[in-house]
Amino acid sequence: MGMDSNTRDQKVAMEGGSYVLEQEDEKEETSIEKIFEAKEVPPWQRQVTVRSLAVSLVLAVLFTFIVMKLNFTTGIIPSLNVSAGLLGFFFVKTWTKLLHRAGLLKQPFTRQENTVIQTCVVASSGIAFSGGFGSYLFGMSEIVAKQSTEANDPKNIKNPAIGWIIGFLFVVSFLGLFSVLPLRKIMIIDFKLIYPSGTATAHLINSFHTPQGAKLAKKQVRQLGKFFSFSFLWGFFQWFFTGGDGCGFAEFPTFGLKAHEHKFFFDFSATYVGVGMICPYLINVSLLVGAILSWGIMWPLIDAKKGDWFSADLSPSSLHGLQGYKVFIAIAMILGDGLYNFVKVLGHTLAGLYKQVSRKDTVLPVNSRAYPENTPAISYDEQKRTELFLRDQIPNWFAISGYLAIAIVSIITLPHIFPQLKWYYIVVIYIVAPVLAFCNAYGCGLTDWSLASTYGKLAIFTIGAWAGAAHGGVIAGLAACGVMMNIVSTASDLMQDFKTGYMTLASPRSMFVSQVIGTAMGCVISPCVFWLFLKAFSDFGFPDSQYPAPYALVYRNMSILGVEGFSALPKNCLTLCYVFFFGAMVINGIRDAVGKKRASFIPLPMAMAIPFYLGAYFAIDMCVGSLILFIWRKVNKAKADAFAPAVASGLICGDGIWTLPSSILALVGVKPPICMKFLSSSANEKVDAFLNS
Amino acid sequence: MGMDSNTRDQKVAMEGGSYVLEQEDEKEETSIEKIFEAKEVPPWQRQVTVRSLAVSLVLAVLFTFIVMKLNFTTGIIPSLNVSAGLLGFFFVKTWTKLLHRAGLLKQPFTRQENTVIQTCVVASSGIAFSGGFGSYLFGMSEIVAKQSTEANDPKNIKNPAIGWIIGFLFVVSFLGLFSVLPLRKIMIIDFKLIYPSGTATAHLINSFHTPQGAKLAKKQVRQLGKFFSFSFLWGFFQWFFTGGDGCGFAEFPTFGLKAHEHKFFFDFSATYVGVGMICPYLINVSLLVGAILSWGIMWPLIDAKKGDWFSADLSPSSLHGLQGYKVFIAIAMILGDGLYNFVKVLGHTLAGLYKQVSRKDTVLPVNSRAYPENTPAISYDEQKRTELFLRDQIPNWFAISGYLAIAIVSIITLPHIFPQLKWYYIVVIYIVAPVLAFCNAYGCGLTDWSLASTYGKLAIFTIGAWAGAAHGGVIAGLAACGVMMNIVSTASDLMQDFKTGYMTLASPRSMFVSQVIGTAMGCVISPCVFWLFLKAFSDFGFPDSQYPAPYALVYRNMSILGVEGFSALPKNCLTLCYVFFFGAMVINGIRDAVGKKRASFIPLPMAMAIPFYLGAYFAIDMCVGSLILFIWRKVNKAKADAFAPAVASGLICGDGIWTLPSSILALVGVKPPICMKFLSSSANEKVDAFLNS
Repeated sequence: MGMDSNTRDQKVAMEGGSYVLEQEDEKEETSIEKIFEAKEVPPWQRQVTVRSLAVSLVLAVLFTFIVMKLNFTTGIIPSLNVSAGLLGFFFVKTWTKLLHRAGLLKQPFTRQENTVIQTCVVASSGIAFSGGFGSYLFGMSEIVAKQSTEANDPKNIKNPAIGWIIGFLFVVSFLGLFSVLPLRKIMIIDFKLIYPSGTATAHLINSFHTPQGAKLAKKQVRQLGKFFSFSFLWGFFQWFFTGGDGCGFAEFPTFGLKAHEHKFFFDFSATYVGVGMICPYLINVSLLVGAILSWGIMWPLIDAKKGDWFSADLSPSSLHGLQGYKVFIAIAMILGDGLYNFVKVLGHTLAGLYKQVSRKDTVLPVNSRAYPENTPAISYDEQKRTELFLRDQIPNWFAISGYLAIAIVSIITLPHIFPQLKWYYIVVIYIVAPVLAFCNAYGCGLTDWSLASTYGKLAIFTIGAWAGAAHGGVIAGLAACGVMMNIVSTASDLMQDFKTGYMTLASPRSMFVSQVIGTAMGCVISPCVFWLFLKAFSDFGFPDSQYPAPYALVYRNMSILGVEGFSALPKNCLTLCYVFFFGAMVINGIRDAVGKKRASFIPLPMAMAIPFYLGAYFAIDMCVGSLILFIWRKVNKAKADAFAPAVASGLICGDGIWTLPSSILALVGVKPPICMKFLSSSANEKVDAFLNS
Repeated sequence: MGMDSNTRDQKVAMEGGSYVLEQEDEKEETSIEKIFEAKEVPPWQRQVTVRSLAVSLVLAVLFTFIVMKLNFTTGIIPSLNVSAGLLGFFFVKTWTKLLHRAGLLKQPFTRQENTVIQTCVVASSGIAFSGGFGSYLFGMSEIVAKQSTEANDPKNIKNPAIGWIIGFLFVVSFLGLFSVLPLRKIMIIDFKLIYPSGTATAHLINSFHTPQGAKLAKKQVRQLGKFFSFSFLWGFFQWFFTGGDGCGFAEFPTFGLKAHEHKFFFDFSATYVGVGMICPYLINVSLLVGAILSWGIMWPLIDAKKGDWFSADLSPSSLHGLQGYKVFIAIAMILGDGLYNFVKVLGHTLAGLYKQVSRKDTVLPVNSRAYPENTPAISYDEQKRTELFLRDQIPNWFAISGYLAIAIVSIITLPHIFPQLKWYYIVVIYIVAPVLAFCNAYGCGLTDWSLASTYGKLAIFTIGAWAGAAHGGVIAGLAACGVMMNIVSTASDLMQDFKTGYMTLASPRSMFVSQVIGTAMGCVISPCVFWLFLKAFSDFGFPDSQYPAPYALVYRNMSILGVEGFSALPKNCLTLCYVFFFGAMVINGIRDAVGKKRASFIPLPMAMAIPFYLGAYFAIDMCVGSLILFIWRKVNKAKADAFAPAVASGLICGDGIWTLPSSILALVGVKPPICMKFLSSSANEKVDAFLNS
């Protein structure tokens, strides 16, 4: 689901970058490449510069922290493209300016270099997500396993350790890159797929390098910096008041203690207010609707059946009690939505492919979906871009032998990491994977939806059922999910980057190299950051803690469902799951049937499912973000459109990077000095009497 | 001291209204009355309309609440002229618009009517201050008396009761009006005294009634309304978290628990942020300097002498311990500042008078202080204003017989209310009072400083010493202070209003009538509001409570000092008091010596003294207000100057009026549901263990 929300957020990314698109639109009609004509395009070896890799490393660490934090709090990860773009631009610009003053500047900052940074950072922080630290990988751990009574024997537990995680990531994360490498010409030049996010990023980078764009970017960077500092300091300030469980602003019962018990409160998180500003209104409203439906209506009703539907003696975190309804209904809704979209996108993909093939004519645009501009002749931009895209070739034998080599290595090593994952499961996955990787890259190019997490879930159910509970099917399923997700998601990421590179005249070679370097960085950085979180926060991964890592439990239980069937569910839960599974499909069907305008008033089932387990608090944060944006746009639309993404990025990044010092403080044992506690008046009287005695 | 801060704030009032002044300045050079030439001036009976009195009543209640709240929290009362003006204008405008739509409007809204409202509201809420509910009157009560061990026998205690307070106010509050009534022509027309606050108010009202001014006023009213609602809702929101002692935002340890212990914290009070926006930077900085000097340096040092300078076993509120140093050093500083300014203003007054008299020429301007414009001939504005000011006469026999009648009534009744206050004391006061009232009205016209509270302190010491401790000298002194303060302060208020009336062509008769009506309203409203506070809040008047009424203790102890001498002071306290008494005079002397520019970097001793007893928290609020204003002026000076007073008024009024529902909630016994508590991490562990056991 995390991934699903991520794919939705690639749309969000478009929204985030749309102001640049709008601005560029007019120029687009003339020609972007005419503007850049005077500027020489450096050879690919001078696109991947040392400085760009250094900046990428810094940003990769920053964004890994941010993505990890999001992973462990709610699993909603907005597109950080705009922030990465702005910060990358800012860092290298500062760097080159300093060198220029010192008279040491050998090479000006080009947009190709900027694209390399962007690609490298996104690839690296992408691992923080697709590595499954908040989902399948952490779902194998004892902490999560102990939260359910099913399948928590040692065979179905694999505790995280930094060593095997790095190894695992290295053997699975590069396959995706090689699997679709040979298809880049077909996808980008022949099919002319849009890749909305990749296109938006390219527009963003192009705009930075025009004089006007650079001026705007400078202003945006200033806004970003301002809100970055504010958000960081706010996180710092909040920290002082969290000296104990249930202390601090994050537990503020804004709407009263009763509402707080039902998870309705504003938790003063700058991150989620920022996320709310980036996500479309519809997502935020859907979250809130889901929260009201679940925590406001359903859970209190089900809780009233305590003793009837489920035993009243269970611990509140037992999956046989209310917690079970929360988790499994959310899973049902996620799977229903996922299945619907899987079928839909696959249908589009096949239909698109069929049309491409049946026309036989692969050079000229055929599909209005894939090529909306419908220009009769090839424009100057296209000519120039195609020429440069085809100049640096990557031979097919390299791609194929690379894929085979890594596949063999990983078939040998993976069973050592997960004895439950037999070598023949992996072979099957690696035979199917390239096809799915292609499907995903193609579908993503058409619709901007990456279905990586859906493919991952497919792997959970098939491989898990194949292995069976007795042979550690839960771990096998989760590990298979990881393998599949990594391949499929890096494949579509790479193709997105090729599109960005195509539009910024960056060489496919430099794109591929920077993607590889970024992935390698991510394979080391992400496990380290994860390790820091795990060691620093003693209650990490527990429900109701600061970092509940909600999808770890969700993924583990999907795997248990796949292996053991529905026997684990409490009474009437299966019926409710069916209702929500089909409900999600029906809602999606209605959304597609009524047309785009009216669909924007129908909530998204996927977004509705997220608060089912977590509660309303982050939905309220995000709605506050929406509200701020809404009012800002009422007051000054132009300014809001130009600066809201920068402000939101600042809020997200500042709060995110505060987790670095905060986890270090926790590691070295510095406790916050004050507890801001919220007691009912009657409890307070008792406490006062106790303290005065 | 409260009154002193009020007098300073009349300067503040000027600042508050200065944007109108600035705007008007150019027009002033042409002619304001030319603009209003077409508008007929109604006779005085049609200036004091029913609707204006109705609006006055509503606003009088509103402002009485606000002033009372300020009385009981810190005693700092900024000028509420701008808010009263804006709100009065808004209410009557709305009223007339509604009537106009209904076809019932008989009379348009004139600026004379507006002046009547302003006069009535200011007179009425003035009683909330000069009635001494936060100073001499409440200082007589048992609650305050019990805080010191000296003179707390029944003879020196008079508990407040709504009956005698209303009676007391009625017999003393009208004398001041009659005492200076005959002098209005001399002061306004002949001496042409400036009365900066009265002039500023007149400019404000004049500006409201020009088309441009009305437009600006409308915008200002909208801002005021917005921040009024915000501040009210914020007060409401805060209320929910105050379910117990030491709970809520007002106890937020913004700078840590240690700093909170020493009263350094931001208490999230919208009122004092607003007050800070109205008060000049210098006052706010002086407060902070005083807070740092006292709570940051001196009190910790003196506290370290515990067991040496004073007994360590004393209760923390005992005046023989640390509390005594706080109170008496503050008193010393207040008296030092008061004495300096008394001598200074009296000197100016006498010098000004001497010049006036020695020139014999009382019609033309003589004194550049009193008449800075120095126009050679009488302008059209002056001609017109003088003509209208002299049209409606009030005979002198009316003033004199009024004064005598009320004096006789009060000489008979006052000893019944305070048996300690012998009738001959009162006779002496009433013989001296008219002279002092004239001095104060004249001095105020020259310098904008009302010395009412200094005259009141004079009465405390003289009458208190005369009566002696054995005969209830403490109560006699405080009562005498009340009598004196009321006479002297209403006298200067009335003259201010005559100036305003002169400049808005309002008749002196309507000014006098509205002042009388306003005063009568105040004599009833203020005791009722005071009564509400007293009944609603169980810990009213105690140190460290929500409403400590700081000046009640200060005034009572001045009276004890006057009666019993310095015997009550703890060790070394007298020496420190001398240092601060003379220190205050020296600082004032330096301020006057170095010139206006450099004086603005030297703190005001009076302002420094306020936090000595209360702590730094409200100084921090006010500095936050200053900071907001400072940044706002950096960003957009024009807008800040135009709207800051409205925003500040909104913040003050909204929070102030919230005390009405909050006290009603307290009266009917509704307790806030939640306690937001701040514990150290170690205390929190104990509490958690206790709560879980």
